[in-house]
Amino acid sequence: MSLYSPSIEKLIEGFEKLPSIGHKTAIRLAFYILNSSEEETNEFVSSIINAKKNLKYCSKCFNISDTDPCIICGNPKRDESTICVVEDVKDIIAMERTHEYKGVYHVLHGSISPMNGIGPDDIKIKELLTRLQKGVVKEVILATNPRVEGEATAMYLSKLIKPLGIKVTRIARGIPIGGDLEYTDEITLTQALEGRRELQ
Amino acid sequence: MSLYSPSIEKLIEGFEKLPSIGHKTAIRLAFYILNSSEEETNEFVSSIINAKKNLKYCSKCFNISDTDPCIICGNPKRDESTICVVEDVKDIIAMERTHEYKGVYHVLHGSISPMNGIGPDDIKIKELLTRLQKGVVKEVILATNPRVEGEATAMYLSKLIKPLGIKVTRIARGIPIGGDLEYTDEITLTQALEGRRELQ
Repeated sequence: MSLYSPSIEKLIEGFEKLPSIGHKTAIRLAFYILNSSEEETNEFVSSIINAKKNLKYCSKCFNISDTDPCIICGNPKRDESTICVVEDVKDIIAMERTHEYKGVYHVLHGSISPMNGIGPDDIKIKELLTRLQKGVVKEVILATNPRVEGEATAMYLSKLIKPLGIKVTRIARGIPIGGDLEYTDEITLTQALEGRRELQ
Repeated sequence: MSLYSPSIEKLIEGFEKLPSIGHKTAIRLAFYILNSSEEETNEFVSSIINAKKNLKYCSKCFNISDTDPCIICGNPKRDESTICVVEDVKDIIAMERTHEYKGVYHVLHGSISPMNGIGPDDIKIKELLTRLQKGVVKEVILATNPRVEGEATAMYLSKLIKPLGIKVTRIARGIPIGGDLEYTDEITLTQALEGRRELQ
């Protein structure tokens, strides 16, 4: 027999399914919900329901957004001649936090990974090429993750896009700020060396 | 301008309000919800709604339960002559995990804490005394937490209950299993010494 009432058990199970939530945290969250007011709970529940209902993919860049086009594609101040290609919606946020990038994005929703059965047709590559065919874009920045899959995807895209006469760049790899040469792996260090720039 | 769409922002805020969920985890959970199926989300949402709807306090022991009396008070195999007094519903679960205790419980829903303006009337002490007046109970085990408030509550209850001719006991304090004398505070060590028992 379970130690908890069925409804608590179900609630704990619900929280446990979420990523990075273990059994003990799930119990704490469940009891927090039980102790919180009707109003607070309704607000939480409707934030979930509304998010699922309102959010859609931007038909241009495949960002997740309440609006179509998304707030970035719909912003006339953004430079449409530069597209930054990322693997995931969360990567857009990471880029936006820099406040440096003024172009638009394209979310692939994954990376080419033969090991996991994900080929070029399973991610938004076709849609990127359609965008490029309009002739507005002058530069494509490949900002896929510097891992095996991200590198492979970047290579693949580069070979497809270069023949269109569009400049293709890759974000720099190197030692992160605050990093330590002693603890940097040799591949990163090699890339940091190769990417060295003359000081002004 | 926020980096996220309003609906995502709301969802992240909703998760952030939960205990032990920081901003980064909230973002991860929000995107997990966005990526999960309609069905999974509905299941999660209804586990919250049902828990809030179905759960009530047991009118005997003030445990949270789908039924009244709760599964413990309603179990005829439990020994009604022993009541274990705890501060919180979660403490019942902790006790039940031992599989050693066969009596019933009483949840105070707090502890006496003048600093926080919580007096004896703010927790379920009156209700405990009403239960004791029926003359069935032979022993009250005070299992409030071994902190200032829990100790004060135990002392207070002990003074109220002893005159009724009922045995009052307090759970043992000492070094936890796997603990280390070197790192045990002096109060715990003192209590461990005082509570020493002759080896058989």
